[in-house]
Amino acid sequence: MGKLTYVKSASQLICMDGGLGPRTGRGMSMLGITANGSVVIEDGIIVFSGSDTLAEHYLSTRQDDVEIIDARGKVVTPGLIDPHTHIVFAGSRENELELRLQGAKYIDILKRGGGILNTARSTREASEEELVRQSKVRLDRFLLHGVTTIEAKSGYGLTVTDELKQLRAARALNDSHPIDVVSTFMGAHAVPEEYNNNPEGYVDLVINEMLPAVAEQELAEFCDVFCEQGVFSIAESRRILEAAGRLGFKLKIHADEIAENFGGAELAARLGAVSAEHLLKASEEGIQALAKSDTIAVLLPGTALFLMEQAAAARKMIAAGVAVALSTDCNPGSSPTVSMPFIMNAACLTMKMTPAEVLTASTINAAYAIGREKVMGSIEIGKQGDLVLFDADNYRQLQYYYGMNLVHTVIKKGQVVVKGGVLVDRQQPAY
Amino acid sequence: MGKLTYVKSASQLICMDGGLGPRTGRGMSMLGITANGSVVIEDGIIVFSGSDTLAEHYLSTRQDDVEIIDARGKVVTPGLIDPHTHIVFAGSRENELELRLQGAKYIDILKRGGGILNTARSTREASEEELVRQSKVRLDRFLLHGVTTIEAKSGYGLTVTDELKQLRAARALNDSHPIDVVSTFMGAHAVPEEYNNNPEGYVDLVINEMLPAVAEQELAEFCDVFCEQGVFSIAESRRILEAAGRLGFKLKIHADEIAENFGGAELAARLGAVSAEHLLKASEEGIQALAKSDTIAVLLPGTALFLMEQAAAARKMIAAGVAVALSTDCNPGSSPTVSMPFIMNAACLTMKMTPAEVLTASTINAAYAIGREKVMGSIEIGKQGDLVLFDADNYRQLQYYYGMNLVHTVIKKGQVVVKGGVLVDRQQPAY
Ligand SMILES: [Zn+2]
Ligand SMILES: [Zn+2]
Repeated sequence: MGKLTYVKSASQLICMDGGLGPRTGRGMSMLGITANGSVVIEDGIIVFSGSDTLAEHYLSTRQDDVEIIDARGKVVTPGLIDPHTHIVFAGSRENELELRLQGAKYIDILKRGGGILNTARSTREASEEELVRQSKVRLDRFLLHGVTTIEAKSGYGLTVTDELKQLRAARALNDSHPIDVVSTFMGAHAVPEEYNNNPEGYVDLVINEMLPAVAEQELAEFCDVFCEQGVFSIAESRRILEAAGRLGFKLKIHADEIAENFGGAELAARLGAVSAEHLLKASEEGIQALAKSDTIAVLLPGTALFLMEQAAAARKMIAAGVAVALSTDCNPGSSPTVSMPFIMNAACLTMKMTPAEVLTASTINAAYAIGREKVMGSIEIGKQGDLVLFDADNYRQLQYYYGMNLVHTVIKKGQVVVKGGVLVDRQQPAY
Repeated sequence: MGKLTYVKSASQLICMDGGLGPRTGRGMSMLGITANGSVVIEDGIIVFSGSDTLAEHYLSTRQDDVEIIDARGKVVTPGLIDPHTHIVFAGSRENELELRLQGAKYIDILKRGGGILNTARSTREASEEELVRQSKVRLDRFLLHGVTTIEAKSGYGLTVTDELKQLRAARALNDSHPIDVVSTFMGAHAVPEEYNNNPEGYVDLVINEMLPAVAEQELAEFCDVFCEQGVFSIAESRRILEAAGRLGFKLKIHADEIAENFGGAELAARLGAVSAEHLLKASEEGIQALAKSDTIAVLLPGTALFLMEQAAAARKMIAAGVAVALSTDCNPGSSPTVSMPFIMNAACLTMKMTPAEVLTASTINAAYAIGREKVMGSIEIGKQGDLVLFDADNYRQLQYYYGMNLVHTVIKKGQVVVKGGVLVDRQQPAY
């Protein structure tokens, strides 16, 4: 006789469906909605999902303690998944927003030793404990915005020691915080200043020292590269990712964010990367290559808005048959937000994705983008009991009541971690 | 011996300054920042504002009970003021978002009897009590987003009876809720369906019956008109507003939102309106006319984003010397948000206003836009004790940490009404 968590009488229960692969085309609009729906979770795992009537029947067969969560007037969805973040860092860079408002470009700030290199300096100076402390505040905020799993990339250390430190901090966060943290090694996030005159030497360091050390210590599942004009070329990106593939890493690419016709999407498809991320400037050929591959497009409309650039061509990608996921890109330079609900709003308003598509892109497709589709991303028997209760009558209102956080309750592995918009049993975060 | 509220040790106290008129040009960037600043409020009124050291000295002269609010690590600003809302209504219109994502235009939805006319039907059906109930939830949410005063327009009744009902609901909200509600009569919000073949007849009804009744019952201070192609022409708007002026109403205009070269801004300046609102399509001449007048431009960047249109030319207006204020435009069709913090983000990211300018536009300039500059909009001795404490180290972070609500504490007339992001002594709102 265990304890059951019984989420009861949701005005809409949005189940999604793990399916046989990431959702594409019209598949992105199929939500699996149950009106007046219930979910039962036992030992962190979903054991029932369906109508209130069937739930009562199911529970009548059980002799357990039941914690009832009243979901009347709420939309219940799978826990939101953010498949692309850089949340482990120290410091903040609000000064760059003003520089950009005056016309400075993100990539030029980086070339002048600011941007990623600024955060690399503060992250190198911080201890592992300090990184955990600053990042934990961000994770608390993610939880308040309905996010129950995130991916987190390294790439602010840019030395062997500091990349490992950043990845250990991510692991410590995963072990100590309700949010699941999936780690990606991204030593190739920028060429650090000490390698200014020897960028090839830094690529060698990533391949010959960082990757083997990360693999040896099992600190990351994925390897990612900032494949961009003036950062890492197609050839360099390919060298790094092929080396990572040989060591057993799954692959991601920061592709086609800034330069036109750079070929990042094509490279991602060719290498069989799990995901290609950003894609603001992806070419027609790149989109076609993604559509023919199993690579998921992770789109970051907040970043486009924050950098005051045109958003990615989501409609064109969906029409071509590319599977689309969404992410905050949470980082101290180009996207200092933790709000997946806002990213979903931005996806509607700046990329014309529909309310149904953005839910798919933030749950099941996002689970595929981090290799977790078997355990999360939908409300199905056997999956983790990760749920969000939104203060809304129907899922369309999640995009209609824009610019606000409608998250009321968050359940992670069957535990209520946010209630009434406030963290349960934890201190309210500092911002 | 009364009770004092002592807000102590803000990392930045942003005082603003009432000045001699609304802020323009470089004046919009002057915030009056005190590092380690304190504010003391007595009987709802600010009696001290300045450095921590001077505050201790001031308090040593007083023998009163003191409630201390710790503002360390917080930015303290005047309570936010939203000078343009339509919050008194019934129903919701999330279906229109999907229509617009498929290409329908806002004005065409209205012409087909949807849009404002849809909300007019549900608002006519609702009792005054029901309007108060539904709108109070929105006011609670406004409070959670740092807004301590709003303007509220009628215009969903469109009959004498229903316009008066809507304005009485606004007055009831003002009387029962911590937020100050300033009322605007906007019978000329749309031509109701029963006047489809006789729009001039509706203008006559507004002028001959509605305006005198509203004036007689003292239900509004301002009169506003939706001056727009296909809604109310320049000549009709002028007739209504001149009649309103003769009855003692101050004037506002929904100007140049949709059609090019319609002349709304010019009309506002010519009539000496307190504000011209929207201005997405204001002409060069219109901007110059505003700059030469005392009329304030109330810009609504959320509405532009939600309607997927180009935002107003804020930089051009500021350069020309127009005083700019910001607003949510909260309404069930073109802007269903209550978040002034998000509107401020949108003003930065879509109109390139700076973090300093958006604060001015949401406090002192917004106070001027609703004729309340003598009692609110800045932290000055003798003004209302309306304050917001944001979880941020400096005011730039309010725009940097975008898409999130950083409001921690809200104080209205000296009373703590929001603490830790939660309403004090009130039920959490339903969405
Ligand atoms: Zn990134
Ligand atoms: Zn309006």
